[in-house]
Amino acid sequence: MFKINGNAAVGQSGGPTSAINATLCGVIRGMDELRENRDIKLYGMVNGIEGFLAGKVIDIDAQVCNEADFELLKHTPASALGSCRFKLPSAEAKPEVYDKIFERFAEYDIRYFFYIGGNDSMDTVKKIAEHAEKINYPINVIGVPKTIDNDLEGTDHSPGFGSAAKYIASTMTEICADNAVYDTESVVITEIMGRDAGWLTMSAALPRFYGLGAPDLIYLPERVFDVGRFVSSVRERLKTKKCLVIAVSEGIRDADGEYICESAGSKEKDIFGHTWLSGTAAVLGKIIKRELGCKVRTIELNTPQRCAAHAASAADLDESVQTGRRAVCLAAEGMTGVMASIIRTKKTPYESEIGYMDIGMIANKIKTVPDAYINSTGDNVTDDGLAYIAPLVIGEPELVRLGGLPVHFIFKKG
Amino acid sequence: MFKINGNAAVGQSGGPTSAINATLCGVIRGMDELRENRDIKLYGMVNGIEGFLAGKVIDIDAQVCNEADFELLKHTPASALGSCRFKLPSAEAKPEVYDKIFERFAEYDIRYFFYIGGNDSMDTVKKIAEHAEKINYPINVIGVPKTIDNDLEGTDHSPGFGSAAKYIASTMTEICADNAVYDTESVVITEIMGRDAGWLTMSAALPRFYGLGAPDLIYLPERVFDVGRFVSSVRERLKTKKCLVIAVSEGIRDADGEYICESAGSKEKDIFGHTWLSGTAAVLGKIIKRELGCKVRTIELNTPQRCAAHAASAADLDESVQTGRRAVCLAAEGMTGVMASIIRTKKTPYESEIGYMDIGMIANKIKTVPDAYINSTGDNVTDDGLAYIAPLVIGEPELVRLGGLPVHFIFKKG
Repeated sequence: MFKINGNAAVGQSGGPTSAINATLCGVIRGMDELRENRDIKLYGMVNGIEGFLAGKVIDIDAQVCNEADFELLKHTPASALGSCRFKLPSAEAKPEVYDKIFERFAEYDIRYFFYIGGNDSMDTVKKIAEHAEKINYPINVIGVPKTIDNDLEGTDHSPGFGSAAKYIASTMTEICADNAVYDTESVVITEIMGRDAGWLTMSAALPRFYGLGAPDLIYLPERVFDVGRFVSSVRERLKTKKCLVIAVSEGIRDADGEYICESAGSKEKDIFGHTWLSGTAAVLGKIIKRELGCKVRTIELNTPQRCAAHAASAADLDESVQTGRRAVCLAAEGMTGVMASIIRTKKTPYESEIGYMDIGMIANKIKTVPDAYINSTGDNVTDDGLAYIAPLVIGEPELVRLGGLPVHFIFKKG
Repeated sequence: MFKINGNAAVGQSGGPTSAINATLCGVIRGMDELRENRDIKLYGMVNGIEGFLAGKVIDIDAQVCNEADFELLKHTPASALGSCRFKLPSAEAKPEVYDKIFERFAEYDIRYFFYIGGNDSMDTVKKIAEHAEKINYPINVIGVPKTIDNDLEGTDHSPGFGSAAKYIASTMTEICADNAVYDTESVVITEIMGRDAGWLTMSAALPRFYGLGAPDLIYLPERVFDVGRFVSSVRERLKTKKCLVIAVSEGIRDADGEYICESAGSKEKDIFGHTWLSGTAAVLGKIIKRELGCKVRTIELNTPQRCAAHAASAADLDESVQTGRRAVCLAAEGMTGVMASIIRTKKTPYESEIGYMDIGMIANKIKTVPDAYINSTGDNVTDDGLAYIAPLVIGEPELVRLGGLPVHFIFKKG
């Protein structure tokens, strides 16, 4: 039996999700299973590697003390440890940053490091693992996947995606019901997150898999978006159906690669060079109103996609815990520079196990929706695509509530 | 014991809610309790009084056949019978419309009419009840309240409000968690429905009642909105707290009575003369970004406020059923021109019963948030206000689901 023989640190990074704390729970569970006793510590980085550099570290063991804490944390949305969007420079460009990080590791005698995040965070994992090897510092660095966007390579899907997909699919079928009440032409355009990959937008179609109300047209960023063809499709559909619901990814672009969204003009970028997108539905709504003259409503599903823990997927939360647990096992087994990853071992009925993948195969890559999941006209998704998503949204979480409202776990960070 | 001795019709009107079908369920239940047998029919108006005028009528008894149908309908959002936004003209201006309505009543031998709706629908109830009396047509016309806005007079609160309030409160506490993850200044401005009354925006503060994460500043349409004071308040708060969440009503106006929202310029109005509002948060977001330069995100909670049945309040759904049931009792007792209304008989612990109110006291009026519920600086709500909302959001509904997604009842209308 492999054991955890030294202190560990865990951090959360990138955009929050409804399941990222369930993964943290998995790391805590894994530590408790594989360390001899709580003299071996689990430290939490506050605000990820950026906070760690500034010395912001908490003792997780002192705060997650019992099963009740664990359950509350598991159902808490958004990074409970705090997050960061910090681009770790290369060791060549900024050796002093690495010196500082490894000084901190030494200060707390940290021998295991778990970093829960998406693409950009896996880049951090890769760089720190490589640097540790180079300077011969004994630490096992393990990435743990997290992203609602589901665009991480090397894993069948990412923890956090299932909950976001469930929220989107549930909300879309409700919006379809809402939009159908009047006997007048009406078009609702919903905007869904996912800059470069259409997984979340795809999940808007999931209700159709069960014969429930679902959007009529769905546009993913994997296909070039043609405004003229879009208007024709809507016009055509309105001839046979009065109330249409359309789902578009925030990241759809035209044939020139230009984003459709209204903020594209401002070219605002974050520190990773990603354009800040918003207003795609608003732009299309104005076009439909102008061209077809019918009633149009636009809806950005917005932040609740990544934080509506009240509507999370129990299947997703459970797999998130398992992924965190497995990360600790991988570290105990002596692995480093790998990411815990979910392997779909059986399609029907769905079965999965948690394996691992070399971090070099993952960092800085984007997994887009495959052609087989998009229909031939590029305005909907296939049943194969829905079959892929279906098992990930099963089950409802049992939330702790006060007066009917969800209660969240809050770490003391002071 | 009073009995229902003739056929009845029920219609739904105005904007949909998560609880309007629960009220319809109550009418069905009440009919089954008070009619001798199902030879006495319950008809459904498809698309409200407008559809009824066009002869769109269905046999509800043939479609809601058993307890399973009843439970499914109870948890279905949006008007399952279809709705309308139809302004009934006065009998003097358009006698032919009334002739047509009463011809239809005669055609189906309808002796009881239940109309589930908000302010505008109660105007319809009033006019039809008055006309029936004038022409001596034997029909009992009963209004049944429904509005997420909670702005109906004559009832402690309206069915539908509790579910919307619960969705808003739950989502706000999740948004607060989401916004707190980064160690950088960040302002989130959420826009909440309610053109003339701030009840829904008030409910954004409910998590505070239980010590949960809640917005820092809250602006209702009952107070003049001063942009300069708003910017100062945000600037001041940012000195002691990095991540702020603000809730604003879509209907806030400046000292000149002008709406803050960006669409105010277009002066688009619906058939009731109500301005179509949208973009209040977007306008304020641009101002904060310009004046303070910090990260700003704006979120319109949008349609899910009225259709997120997956997050409905069990207390609201149960009261909605009871209100519908009571409407049938009132009709059986020989009442007409009244609205079933909820009376809060005890504050703590909350107790209520369903009474009734003369429709003349209700139609075309707006119940706004009283002064006692708004704090002295006009940027938050009082604990008294939250105590009013708290009992209305208790309990979670047990949804019928397929593959984790909510299933909805659909009437055959063809």
